[in-house]
Amino acid sequence: MRAAVVRDGAVAVQEVPDLVPRPGELLVKVASSGINAADLLQRSGLYPAPAGSPADIPGLEFAGEVVATGGGWSAYKLGDRVMAVVGGGGQAEYAVVHESHALLVPKRVDLEAAGGFPEAFSTAHDALVTQARMTSSDRVLITGAAGGVGTAAIQIAAALGGTVVASARDEAKHAALVELGADSTITPDQTADAGPFDVVLELVGGSSLADVQRTLARFARVVVIGVGGGGPRVELDLLGVMQRRITLTGSTLRSRSVEEKAQVAAAVRRGLLPLLGSGAIRVPVQSVLPLEDVSVAYDAFAAGGKLGKYVLSVSE
Amino acid sequence: MRAAVVRDGAVAVQEVPDLVPRPGELLVKVASSGINAADLLQRSGLYPAPAGSPADIPGLEFAGEVVATGGGWSAYKLGDRVMAVVGGGGQAEYAVVHESHALLVPKRVDLEAAGGFPEAFSTAHDALVTQARMTSSDRVLITGAAGGVGTAAIQIAAALGGTVVASARDEAKHAALVELGADSTITPDQTADAGPFDVVLELVGGSSLADVQRTLARFARVVVIGVGGGGPRVELDLLGVMQRRITLTGSTLRSRSVEEKAQVAAAVRRGLLPLLGSGAIRVPVQSVLPLEDVSVAYDAFAAGGKLGKYVLSVSE
Repeated sequence: MRAAVVRDGAVAVQEVPDLVPRPGELLVKVASSGINAADLLQRSGLYPAPAGSPADIPGLEFAGEVVATGGGWSAYKLGDRVMAVVGGGGQAEYAVVHESHALLVPKRVDLEAAGGFPEAFSTAHDALVTQARMTSSDRVLITGAAGGVGTAAIQIAAALGGTVVASARDEAKHAALVELGADSTITPDQTADAGPFDVVLELVGGSSLADVQRTLARFARVVVIGVGGGGPRVELDLLGVMQRRITLTGSTLRSRSVEEKAQVAAAVRRGLLPLLGSGAIRVPVQSVLPLEDVSVAYDAFAAGGKLGKYVLSVSE
Repeated sequence: MRAAVVRDGAVAVQEVPDLVPRPGELLVKVASSGINAADLLQRSGLYPAPAGSPADIPGLEFAGEVVATGGGWSAYKLGDRVMAVVGGGGQAEYAVVHESHALLVPKRVDLEAAGGFPEAFSTAHDALVTQARMTSSDRVLITGAAGGVGTAAIQIAAALGGTVVASARDEAKHAALVELGADSTITPDQTADAGPFDVVLELVGGSSLADVQRTLARFARVVVIGVGGGGPRVELDLLGVMQRRITLTGSTLRSRSVEEKAQVAAAVRRGLLPLLGSGAIRVPVQSVLPLEDVSVAYDAFAAGGKLGKYVLSVSE
């Protein structure tokens, strides 16, 4: 089969050995696969694939049709439209995924957009709902809100009934963030006056969190998911944490165990697929490029300025 | 009645108006009242009493006998031996407490020791059990372990079956910490080699947490309760938080609402009083001084070097 392959700091499509699903796995003919920041890190050699994932085929998510199962009983049948987060290998003609990680693509969603759904929406849902236990009474700040996880998080927080403040440096994108469901938008330098917040999804990192920590309500929950824009370190005010009973946590999706990923998928099935199926949330697609143009697509993704997902289309 | 009164940076016993319990409250003839760091802060004018507490009578905890109720139905009867955490006012001949905050003193515990139980043990139990959800499979680090909360936490963590590492600067106290239940003891400079830890009760603050953050196991929970020794700021490594799924939280007991304090008391009744009643945990009393010597007692407490509680004896 053909697949994007990372080698010596570059990515290009080439022929690789076919895949054989093991028991409990699905073999999926990939229709599309979203691009994520981790793909670029993997191209640079800075983000090695986790154990059990293809070492040199990037792609943390995909959507497509089931073409084979690994044998034994399966909850899926051939032709089922599925999508999933994977440790890698999504940017290829075929991919395998453990059944417990697969999500059925709702009828009204086309496979092209679906390939950009799993990673960002699972990350945002896990952070907001499972980690921060967000409810409809919460005032929610999403920093770095114009990115893939940010645009997913705005929609999820709005669909759950929260009051959503979206923070993005580029004011030209603010109108689009409101359209996605943000109640108001700010630039990072307006953070101090925008609180208090009950839940913060921190997608920028240290420099952002330095300001955010002063805007937290009593019992606020802060979940750190990204540090690419603002650096990995922050000077934390512990008295503020104590007096306002703050909880700070963080996570990466990729490093989790098979069981943990299955729990994330189960939560997405229950909490998020109904919203996707009803149209309450949708994948904002910035651009679709063919798999053969993977290198161009990575460069476009890296150039920034985007709102929504870059998706590689894999079907011939 | 006579009470310790804070004025112009000093504390002394003087005559103050008698107390009248309101419905839902108990009037308690105080037998003893533990000294806590907050009392010294209050003497310095740095720790104003929370709303609803006596503004100038210190004392965050006491034990004694119920001598009146505020009217209406009461779960307590005259003569019941009770102890409680209060927002202030414990260091006096009489004190009032909301019934929902009162704890029955187990039979085998004398009232003198009981007066040093509520604050430290409620704080440690709330932090370890309610906040950190400590279980018997956890490896627990307690920093600043020789203080009132630390010696309580060692006993609670050990009684719950955890593996307890106690950190204290003064090696002369290490043997006593092992006697209280610590599986091993370290000085703060040995922190780096003592991990990994699943739960950390941080009683020292920033300088300690700077080292502690490098010793955390996956899914570790850190609860910050004190920053007096190590300062209120720490440079936090957010990538470590993300990759190891750390949760950091903190609290103070005194600033909580009446309802929150009732929840803490309820958890102590369920989880801790049986251990106190059985002798599995005990109040380590360093020194008992009469209420009249409150100023001397504060100075002795402030001088440090203690292991266990300073208690003011209030009975004539």
